[in-house]
Amino acid sequence: MSVGLELFDLLVQRALMREGLILKLTCPDKHGLVAQIASHASEFSANLVEFNQFTEQKRGIFYARLEIDTESLEVSIEDFIASFEVLGRAIKAVWHFRRLPYKMRTAVLVTKTDHCLNEILWRTKLGEMPIEITSVIGNRSDCKEIAENSGLPFHLVEMGEDKEVGFLEIESLLEEQQVELVVLARFMQIMPPWMCEKYSGRMINIHHSFLPAFIGANPYRQAYERGVKFIGATCHYVTGELDAGPIIEQEVERVQHHHSVLDLVRLGRDCERAALARGIRYHVHDRTIIDGKRAIVFPD
Amino acid sequence: MSVGLELFDLLVQRALMREGLILKLTCPDKHGLVAQIASHASEFSANLVEFNQFTEQKRGIFYARLEIDTESLEVSIEDFIASFEVLGRAIKAVWHFRRLPYKMRTAVLVTKTDHCLNEILWRTKLGEMPIEITSVIGNRSDCKEIAENSGLPFHLVEMGEDKEVGFLEIESLLEEQQVELVVLARFMQIMPPWMCEKYSGRMINIHHSFLPAFIGANPYRQAYERGVKFIGATCHYVTGELDAGPIIEQEVERVQHHHSVLDLVRLGRDCERAALARGIRYHVHDRTIIDGKRAIVFPD
Amino acid sequence: MSVGLELFDLLVQRALMREGLILKLTCPDKHGLVAQIASHASEFSANLVEFNQFTEQKRGIFYARLEIDTESLEVSIEDFIASFEVLGRAIKAVWHFRRLPYKMRTAVLVTKTDHCLNEILWRTKLGEMPIEITSVIGNRSDCKEIAENSGLPFHLVEMGEDKEVGFLEIESLLEEQQVELVVLARFMQIMPPWMCEKYSGRMINIHHSFLPAFIGANPYRQAYERGVKFIGATCHYVTGELDAGPIIEQEVERVQHHHSVLDLVRLGRDCERAALARGIRYHVHDRTIIDGKRAIVFPD
Amino acid sequence: MSVGLELFDLLVQRALMREGLILKLTCPDKHGLVAQIASHASEFSANLVEFNQFTEQKRGIFYARLEIDTESLEVSIEDFIASFEVLGRAIKAVWHFRRLPYKMRTAVLVTKTDHCLNEILWRTKLGEMPIEITSVIGNRSDCKEIAENSGLPFHLVEMGEDKEVGFLEIESLLEEQQVELVVLARFMQIMPPWMCEKYSGRMINIHHSFLPAFIGANPYRQAYERGVKFIGATCHYVTGELDAGPIIEQEVERVQHHHSVLDLVRLGRDCERAALARGIRYHVHDRTIIDGKRAIVFPD
Repeated sequence: MSVGLELFDLLVQRALMREGLILKLTCPDKHGLVAQIASHASEFSANLVEFNQFTEQKRGIFYARLEIDTESLEVSIEDFIASFEVLGRAIKAVWHFRRLPYKMRTAVLVTKTDHCLNEILWRTKLGEMPIEITSVIGNRSDCKEIAENSGLPFHLVEMGEDKEVGFLEIESLLEEQQVELVVLARFMQIMPPWMCEKYSGRMINIHHSFLPAFIGANPYRQAYERGVKFIGATCHYVTGELDAGPIIEQEVERVQHHHSVLDLVRLGRDCERAALARGIRYHVHDRTIIDGKRAIVFPD
Repeated sequence: MSVGLELFDLLVQRALMREGLILKLTCPDKHGLVAQIASHASEFSANLVEFNQFTEQKRGIFYARLEIDTESLEVSIEDFIASFEVLGRAIKAVWHFRRLPYKMRTAVLVTKTDHCLNEILWRTKLGEMPIEITSVIGNRSDCKEIAENSGLPFHLVEMGEDKEVGFLEIESLLEEQQVELVVLARFMQIMPPWMCEKYSGRMINIHHSFLPAFIGANPYRQAYERGVKFIGATCHYVTGELDAGPIIEQEVERVQHHHSVLDLVRLGRDCERAALARGIRYHVHDRTIIDGKRAIVFPD
Repeated sequence: MSVGLELFDLLVQRALMREGLILKLTCPDKHGLVAQIASHASEFSANLVEFNQFTEQKRGIFYARLEIDTESLEVSIEDFIASFEVLGRAIKAVWHFRRLPYKMRTAVLVTKTDHCLNEILWRTKLGEMPIEITSVIGNRSDCKEIAENSGLPFHLVEMGEDKEVGFLEIESLLEEQQVELVVLARFMQIMPPWMCEKYSGRMINIHHSFLPAFIGANPYRQAYERGVKFIGATCHYVTGELDAGPIIEQEVERVQHHHSVLDLVRLGRDCERAALARGIRYHVHDRTIIDGKRAIVFPD
Repeated sequence: MSVGLELFDLLVQRALMREGLILKLTCPDKHGLVAQIASHASEFSANLVEFNQFTEQKRGIFYARLEIDTESLEVSIEDFIASFEVLGRAIKAVWHFRRLPYKMRTAVLVTKTDHCLNEILWRTKLGEMPIEITSVIGNRSDCKEIAENSGLPFHLVEMGEDKEVGFLEIESLLEEQQVELVVLARFMQIMPPWMCEKYSGRMINIHHSFLPAFIGANPYRQAYERGVKFIGATCHYVTGELDAGPIIEQEVERVQHHHSVLDLVRLGRDCERAALARGIRYHVHDRTIIDGKRAIVFPD
């Protein structure tokens, strides 16, 4: 009930359309890496908007993420990217450039509950997540309406006796849609090893517990029975080991003895939505680097 | 990605359909009030599901909320309610019974941003909030589509030179729809005193700051300029004094120096949604009692 | 840097000296329990300061805690307690009265780190915890100085080859000091089953993880390696099963990938102090009731 | 109750004794600053342990903090510091080097309550804060014992009719002790303008509210009367304007209607301790840069 902020739309629009580059990089640690990398950028008058780095001391690995404003760049963006090749090889890096603005092609897999899907749709529409949802895929049709109301194709892929048939169908949809990211938004099926392998680092799940507590089925019931004072949700990359992939984000919420399992489910939904939304956002903004069983995350 | 909880729907449905009563009561404090009130209920075999009470010591005022399961009640609900009359008068109480299940007739007023509206729609659909949205009223048409997609009537009431004309039009819509609750879901207009008066205790606002900090316009800008380390949102009853009504719920979120005003707006949206949703829920479940400038809230 | 609140000391003193009773009660659920219990109190003009209750629906068990101001009581406190006998037996309750003010005789067991001990000492001195520390018992002498600086006896009980010898020595100290509560304030020894049994419901531990995650040794290292985004601490009753007793309180703290194990240890100390302090406070104020593997906790 | 982490002491000791440099720097923003600064360090084989930077876009100001491991430095530390002069001037920077390990000479000012003092003493002893407390100065003698128990001199400076006399006495103590940092640890006196001026950026206060809410006296009473759902504490630099200096850190805690002012005082103590401890730590580790009315803080 206060007077409006009006020019914000313009600012938001501009922020979303901003031209630029993100550079994500991993290499063996040594002296002078920051200088070398930053010097390369400044050689062509690129402007560093953000520069995050982290050195894992034990194994001596250097991780960095640079967000570069290319407006003042004196060479073409293609040339700038190409010119990094020599330095990248010299420091034995694995690296990746992403041009901004971009939208990551994303498929959302669901089963029945729609709170995570709804959250993704809403934040995408708002511009909080630069993704383009190629389709919603459900092994039940509960979320069909909400998907189609948002103008998105919905594919029903029922998981029958032989689940492999269903997974192959899903895979063929993902292939067809040239999906870069798969989001399991409360998709209640255990992904087969070959899909975990193929989408390694590109498949994100939301688990409805504060992992590593309460792995597997019915975590809210487990939480109730253990009598914990916080429940939580965990957004993580999917690996072959159930609920054990690198954690991107978690959220927790205080609960009390009088909360029934049903209450925990209700309160947990808010944790799930928050953790998944931030997790996707970090991934899509290239703010995550997988480091074995952990994820390096440079939050914004 | 774990196996599903299926019979939950049934449980949720049953919880929402549960027959019962809520009794909300305020009276001068004295010995034996809990016994008197509880004895009255047990006389007719009502079962207390929840019994919250609080005594404000300084002024000696007793506040209570009882949730009563009427399945085992030996008299009719009407008779039970009527029979309380004698006790209520004897203890000089102000009291109110509400029969469950019920849905509160609610109008949602909006301007431009839709995150609060979207949250209310989603939670209502899910059964988290027992309200029936009679219509969405906007002084701009930005939220028309989202309202209509949810099957709700949308009324555009433009606020021109003479705002009083607009407010009268809103009031006539509220009257016509027999609204019990008015939710200002980021409605960027200052309500006139006569409406604050008329809907006293029945009009809820979400203010996008941690009140009493940053009253009035552009609280996120104010927060940025003051360099606070948390932003927040406040759900409160609307009174004639701007942003000074009894607080029902607040939410906060940690921020850092590098967050721009735009970032604060983005992060603040989550505070606003959470605080408003809980605030409405508490009100509709009769978990709030206004106590002068404060609100007694028995959270669930 | 603002002008002082001076009469607070008086208020705090009075709050600590307040005469009264706490009644803790468990019984099979049935209609009218609240009325029966409250009526008993009001019969003799006792004033209910607080009345918390909870019904575990599945097994139909009723739990309650009453805090009673006895100033206006028309009979002696002894008679009031005695008079409850008939009602207590009638409703098949297990119950317990505690007279206020009181101080619980408490032994604190430590090993090396002193942050939990220091917290307990400080809060006890401040009057936040109505305990009387009978002694500090350490299996190393690291905390001797801090104990003695606070005027408390310190007993060194070294745990040699045969730990049973040490535990028997500790037990004889506890017996001698007529201890009602044993606090394991980062005592790095696994208690033998017979002690867990004997002090069942009267021995509190602080575990340096968010249980049930990271049971056992080096939880901070485990947390680091799993890459969790929150660390935590858990205050629980000690049972024969390691780190599996009923949880009284937990605390969590957000962490990031750049936090080393050493940082987690540092940040975790604050979780441990907070969770243990609140856990002891709840226990000593009779705000906890053990309910199988869970603890009912009525927080203040 | 799990088996101990023993070699930690060694690690902690080593971390505290680590040789190195912190460079704090502010200058007008331009392209290539990160490269220039990092290159300077790498020229002499210094190793960047941490490199934080932030650009305030509106006014175009660049802020940076570098933590440098000097073990591999090829020149002397003095020469390294001296060699920065040319670059620093070229980029029109204000900068500051600090050699590690170091301990900041700190005076703690108190009045009556000792929780903040106790927290500082404990963390200092533990090595969490690299400060050397030169003395505790109180305008009452309540904290004399706790100071002296820790082996610290305590100075009683009573504030009589003419407060200026007291402040002059305090100032002469600070001068005599060559104090670098003044901590107002619940010192209930308003510092005179000339002291605010003289210790600008070197005097830290803890205010017992979530500023800018509840400036001035009795913030917990104000919070109670306003019925807020969170209380808080604010650690800030002291300026001539009451409770309006740049905020270093804040902490909040959820409260409910049943919490009395006394409860808020109790719960608030934990906020105060946490916010002040982190605030001092950030300041002493050179993690803060004052930016007008705000403080840039690079937390660890």
